[in-house]
Amino acid sequence: MLATPVAGLPPRLRAGDDLAALVADAVADWRDGDVVVIAHKAVSKCEGRIVRLADVTPSARARQLAAEHDKDPRQVQVVLDESAELVRADHGVLITRTRHGFVCANAGVDASNSGEDDTLVLLPLDPDGSARGLRAALRAHTGVERLAVVVTDSFGRAWRHGQCDVAIGVAGLQPLDDRRGGRDADGRELRATWIAVADQAAAAADLVRDKISGTPTVVLRGLGHHVTADDGPGAAALLRPLAEDLFR
Amino acid sequence: MLATPVAGLPPRLRAGDDLAALVADAVADWRDGDVVVIAHKAVSKCEGRIVRLADVTPSARARQLAAEHDKDPRQVQVVLDESAELVRADHGVLITRTRHGFVCANAGVDASNSGEDDTLVLLPLDPDGSARGLRAALRAHTGVERLAVVVTDSFGRAWRHGQCDVAIGVAGLQPLDDRRGGRDADGRELRATWIAVADQAAAAADLVRDKISGTPTVVLRGLGHHVTADDGPGAAALLRPLAEDLFR
Repeated sequence: MLATPVAGLPPRLRAGDDLAALVADAVADWRDGDVVVIAHKAVSKCEGRIVRLADVTPSARARQLAAEHDKDPRQVQVVLDESAELVRADHGVLITRTRHGFVCANAGVDASNSGEDDTLVLLPLDPDGSARGLRAALRAHTGVERLAVVVTDSFGRAWRHGQCDVAIGVAGLQPLDDRRGGRDADGRELRATWIAVADQAAAAADLVRDKISGTPTVVLRGLGHHVTADDGPGAAALLRPLAEDLFR
Repeated sequence: MLATPVAGLPPRLRAGDDLAALVADAVADWRDGDVVVIAHKAVSKCEGRIVRLADVTPSARARQLAAEHDKDPRQVQVVLDESAELVRADHGVLITRTRHGFVCANAGVDASNSGEDDTLVLLPLDPDGSARGLRAALRAHTGVERLAVVVTDSFGRAWRHGQCDVAIGVAGLQPLDDRRGGRDADGRELRATWIAVADQAAAAADLVRDKISGTPTVVLRGLGHHVTADDGPGAAALLRPLAEDLFR
């Protein structure tokens, strides 16, 4: 597998920018089976998923949480607006379940890289839909049929330090590779082998992205066996149902 | 970054096998900055971290947990022996904190790929120590100074389906890349950017491993900027302290 960062995108993306066209033009040689991994911030900015703090009026609950956790009450209000549930609030971090069902810090709302000092970048409204739209547009621009798109964010983990990128939107890539019931080289059943392909693709791509220069896009080559003809179930398939959540 | 699976290792590794020598000989051209990612099962087998179910006498607690969760009481006993704490027991899964401090299913104890029907493969006693030993031996065998070793396992996640490989032992690789306090392209502070490099390297490597053929080793090329002169803090640096664990 070869992971190559895509250089040459404009340093600041804005609402209405044609991200697919920009990415298509920035890569010289597209190949069958390429997986395009895009940090959600680029997608969110082009989709106008930006909130100005000056436009936010914090509720009493937001003001209380902000006071308890030393945060900007307007930012807390935006996090609550993006959340279906506040899972934990501690160590100055709000861990929430987003309206999409992702459990992450601050509902994925981020101030860094927003490009303006008083704005926040939100997750896309429908990251799987964003991935499907980008895939269709990239196919049209490049003429490559078997192409996948993964939209990513950096999530912390419950028991481990640091963040790994995960897939929040997927189109054309098998999000999970279910080997359960299969056999290994010794003929033994692979009882628990259920591989989060899209999340591992997101993590692999992040290793070659430069957070400083803000390179949002990486092309992964060599995963064609996981690229599908249709869009597939998307990142929604990666969400553990609430009924199976042991850590709410 | 180029991820290349290492072919040509013997299909069944056994206690006492010289894994470093086998891996060193299996790669034609070692390069400065190569990161060698090895699935722990290969390491555990060579270290003799195997338990025969026939040799296990389950305790009353193991028998009770096994009955409640439809498991083999001897396997549950081994899981308890490997665990410092049982974090959750539900859906037929025991989530424990291992003696090393990893929170994962069944304390990392695995039946598949053990190579014999009545045996279990345990995690290495000291995965960081295993990584340091493999790194020293690989340096000696290959003559390459700047070489890193990552020992991995596949962990499930609290809120997401499927498994991603993570680092349980690290030598010569920066486990975390701390960008907190740094500035992005817009000159804004990267407040939360703390990248789990070793875990993302583990995930990237798993994308090119073949679970069926059991290819345990992958070489990652292009991460030399994260390879360190000394062994470094190891995977221990990736463990979130108990005091910061919001999900026990």
